Amino acid sequence: ESTNDFRSQKDFLTQKLQHTESMNQALEARLSDLERRLQSNQQEREAFRRSLRQLLELLDGKLFELTELRDALGRIVESS
Amino acid sequence: ESTNDFRSQKDFLTQKLQHTESMNQALEARLSDLERRLQSNQQEREAFRRSLRQLLELLDGKLFELTELRDALGRIVESS
Amino acid sequence: ESTNDFRSQKDFLTQKLQHTESMNQALEARLSDLERRLQSNQQEREAFRRSLRQLLELLDGKLFELTELRDALGRIVESS
Amino acid sequence: ESTNDFRSQKDFLTQKLQHTESMNQALEARLSDLERRLQSNQQEREAFRRSLRQLLELLDGKLFELTELRDALGRIVESS
Repeated sequence: ESTNDFRSQKDFLTQKLQHTESMNQALEARLSDLERRLQSNQQEREAFRRSLRQLLELLDGKLFELTELRDALGRIVESS
Repeated sequence: ESTNDFRSQKDFLTQKLQHTESMNQALEARLSDLERRLQSNQQEREAFRRSLRQLLELLDGKLFELTELRDALGRIVESS
Repeated sequence: ESTNDFRSQKDFLTQKLQHTESMNQALEARLSDLERRLQSNQQEREAFRRSLRQLLELLDGKLFELTELRDALGRIVESS
Repeated sequence: ESTNDFRSQKDFLTQKLQHTESMNQALEARLSDLERRLQSNQQEREAFRRSLRQLLELLDGKLFELTELRDALGRIVESS
């Protein structure tokens, strides 16, 4: 091969490498973004579940108090 | 005692007896009325207790259904 | 009429009067008893209604708190 | 430059390009995986919210029925 052929091949490879490396950087940036979103989703989901669990405990308390009222009504009815 | 004395005593006794007998009738009428009211009160009271017992059963049903909803919410929260 | 006739009539009336008066006393005693029972029933009934009204107020409080929990759940669901 | 220098530079660039292209493929595979997980999370989240909304509707129904029971109790108490 002539020196010119080698030079043009080398330029082609250099350009292709630069292009591929910049694609790599773009892909890594998108990956980081998606990972942050997944992690943020996961945190929202856990916060959501914590809120729901607190609400379930409050609901349990109310159901217990309603059951006590029902029993108080039962006692009033039977004692009358 | 003279015949006049006896007659006036008899008239007094007869009048007093009539008065006492009419009081008796009035008392018996009031007694019947009170007994009817007591019986009517008793019936109302029993009807009232029956209504309350039916309501307690409905309340039990609703509390059961609320507890089922609470458990469904618990399962949704834990499965998420 | 002879004196004996008058005397026997007077004795008969006196006995009948005594019998009627003692019946009167018995009727008045029964009336007092029934009136006390009616009054006592009335007081029990009012105490019963007061208990039920207190219970209704407590029930209203619990229903309000349950509705607040439902709304809190609604907000959690819509914000998630 | 000598022909040998050009040849060794070309080989170096070719190897580096192959390495970068294979990294690219790995990154694209990971991106596809993360996108699938994000989409799947999103679908789970929507299914979860649908479940919670259905549950809220059932809860509303129960609260309405409890309020009706409370009103029935109120009417019974006031009519007694």
